[in-house]
Amino acid sequence: MESSAEVLYVELISSEEALKKLLDEVSVEVGSEVVRLLSSVGRHSFRDYVSTVDVPPFSRSAVDGFAAIFADIVGASEGSPALLRVTGSVDVDSVEVPTINRSEAVKVSTGAPLPRGADVVIPIEYCKVLEDRVYVYRSYPRYANISFKGEDLRVGDIIVRRGTKLRPWHVAALKASGYEEVEVFRKVRVSIVSTGSELVKGVLPNYTLPLVASYIAELGGEVALTDVVPDSIEDIATAVEKALELSDVVVVTGGTSVGDRDLSPRALESLGRSKKVFHGVRVRPGRTCGAYVVDGKLVLLVSGLPVATYVSLELFLKPLVYKLYSSKPEPKPTVRGRLTRRLPNEPGFRSFYRAVACIEGDEVLIVPLRLTGSGVLSTLVRGNAVVEVPEDSEGYEEGTEIVATLVNPLVECSSIKLPI
Amino acid sequence: MESSAEVLYVELISSEEALKKLLDEVSVEVGSEVVRLLSSVGRHSFRDYVSTVDVPPFSRSAVDGFAAIFADIVGASEGSPALLRVTGSVDVDSVEVPTINRSEAVKVSTGAPLPRGADVVIPIEYCKVLEDRVYVYRSYPRYANISFKGEDLRVGDIIVRRGTKLRPWHVAALKASGYEEVEVFRKVRVSIVSTGSELVKGVLPNYTLPLVASYIAELGGEVALTDVVPDSIEDIATAVEKALELSDVVVVTGGTSVGDRDLSPRALESLGRSKKVFHGVRVRPGRTCGAYVVDGKLVLLVSGLPVATYVSLELFLKPLVYKLYSSKPEPKPTVRGRLTRRLPNEPGFRSFYRAVACIEGDEVLIVPLRLTGSGVLSTLVRGNAVVEVPEDSEGYEEGTEIVATLVNPLVECSSIKLPI
Repeated sequence: MESSAEVLYVELISSEEALKKLLDEVSVEVGSEVVRLLSSVGRHSFRDYVSTVDVPPFSRSAVDGFAAIFADIVGASEGSPALLRVTGSVDVDSVEVPTINRSEAVKVSTGAPLPRGADVVIPIEYCKVLEDRVYVYRSYPRYANISFKGEDLRVGDIIVRRGTKLRPWHVAALKASGYEEVEVFRKVRVSIVSTGSELVKGVLPNYTLPLVASYIAELGGEVALTDVVPDSIEDIATAVEKALELSDVVVVTGGTSVGDRDLSPRALESLGRSKKVFHGVRVRPGRTCGAYVVDGKLVLLVSGLPVATYVSLELFLKPLVYKLYSSKPEPKPTVRGRLTRRLPNEPGFRSFYRAVACIEGDEVLIVPLRLTGSGVLSTLVRGNAVVEVPEDSEGYEEGTEIVATLVNPLVECSSIKLPI
Repeated sequence: MESSAEVLYVELISSEEALKKLLDEVSVEVGSEVVRLLSSVGRHSFRDYVSTVDVPPFSRSAVDGFAAIFADIVGASEGSPALLRVTGSVDVDSVEVPTINRSEAVKVSTGAPLPRGADVVIPIEYCKVLEDRVYVYRSYPRYANISFKGEDLRVGDIIVRRGTKLRPWHVAALKASGYEEVEVFRKVRVSIVSTGSELVKGVLPNYTLPLVASYIAELGGEVALTDVVPDSIEDIATAVEKALELSDVVVVTGGTSVGDRDLSPRALESLGRSKKVFHGVRVRPGRTCGAYVVDGKLVLLVSGLPVATYVSLELFLKPLVYKLYSSKPEPKPTVRGRLTRRLPNEPGFRSFYRAVACIEGDEVLIVPLRLTGSGVLSTLVRGNAVVEVPEDSEGYEEGTEIVATLVNPLVECSSIKLPI
């Protein structure tokens, strides 16, 4: 068996390749559950939904005004209004729909069914009523101010595709079709195995566990099980086995490096039926990240240092969870700004720097934080932006205009306490 | 009393002014509740939290390697290694911390406490052990590969400010300080009063109500009460009174325009103690939006047409809710692309168009949807982007490079079914 040290330094691969291999190897499928429509927002639809109705269900007025026949109002103007006889009114809840004939008009509310025979609606502000007559002071094109039956949605139109993360408008469209329940993917179950004798003994607080657990919750997953085990191949293996029973994905924190106590890869190898996908990626921080597949499920090994862990979760856990939901990660908010100091890059590595993106006058400045260690939690707390330097770049010079990902709102540069 | 028609067309104000007035008038305060740390992600902190510990709690090694004295390894190289005597090892869970003297080295794991007297750590890959000796093949600057006590966080450092929406790293930082519970703002309670006799009678499905309810959930609020009432001043007023008792904010849908049945503003006036903030804004869609303040609480009147309602919630409800949480709305994901057809603008109006942002080769195209009525739900379902045309713009020409807000992931242009 190869030692993890050899593996790590021989087989460092790019994060793109690592992700591709990982997504190819994982074969677990996530089932569905039925939830009430009003609880469905943020969940991923398990199937396509089509409209069962025409929206609008009938042709209707798009404004408050008078429905008329186009031929009767064509050419009407301030100086030469059309004069029509008002024969009735129709409202949004009217069941009887009147018919109009030449030279007639019917008063209509927004949303009211269009009188039979009408082919234009004149907004009320261009009409003046005198007893049972109405003066129309403006002409409109034929069909103006009418919403036609099915113009919004037609029976059979797809309103939600499988995998779609449901947003408020999807919920509304489902409601319009009379759906009161939705079949969504059940939440992906992720377990966390924290390794580290220092954590078991309480020498150090285990703050990576809540970091990962919160990350899973934000991602729309469910934490199935958490366990904290000492640096022992057997204990790690036993915890991973238990976690695999209850989960779709297992995240193991700690023990992924090349020290004597970095036993996570060896524990995974000891399971016998595990397949190594990769160990060691050209990413900083997060170089020691590894992935095994067991029973078709991902076991992701992350360093345990908080920033490195966060980067690994972003690069590997998030795309996998979205894939399990037949979906794609949401776009991230970004900001374009001027870099205030040089960001170097180790050739061949994809690097992530934390920074403060701040507004100074008309300009956005991107101020990299000084401390960049993979364990430096405070940079996540103090920063609001992440700058990625791609593998093929030697870094960015001071003054370069770059695009950063925003993780918290922009701040005023004057509010930053220096040095940062 | 002025009629709502006069109000609407006389007093149309800009959305910026409307929002400013609204935020100034609302005086309600949202209290706090205590939640478990692991349930706190996504909630807004009610107070500042400071670190109660130094992180790291002691100076420690940042790598696996050998701790040494800088003077002993300075100048070491591949051709001229330094030779040191290994006097012991220290691990992350070690309680006893050894001391080193000149010409000595101690083996250290990542995270292990730094031996007393050591001022540099050499990574293991530049060391070679031979019995109780170690050859060091590379020199490092003094203090290299050491994380100093408190270098990440010091006792008293602010880790979370009041209002901060808690993300995974905040949860981790709170855990590092031993917090197991967090005081967060209780969720803002929003009630929804749907007005419309057609909704009460079931002539039309009420899909604006689930739109608003889902929006509130996404925003991190809580739906306190929902009510559907006919077009009657008294019924609307009664429902609003009941809603005010249970909520911080009330959203009234429908009845905000100038038709005979648009009674929401009149119902609000009838409460006696209400103060009109505005009615009618220069925004499309969403022009008929209005706001009253009663007992210091916002009663927001929105049109009920789904797209107009969504725009009004984005412009007014979201900033208010964030203000109640002492916070600011998150940055939105955007995309820069080339507009495929002209987008006109009515002078003086701030307009929102729905579009599909798609990738064609190296380029992003922004394809505005044809149907733009304020009721046209399908444009929200089919589109993935929103283009804003500011008040002072006459619109954008075809081919212009613009920035759009992304509401769903980018798609391939080839996947769009035309016409859209």
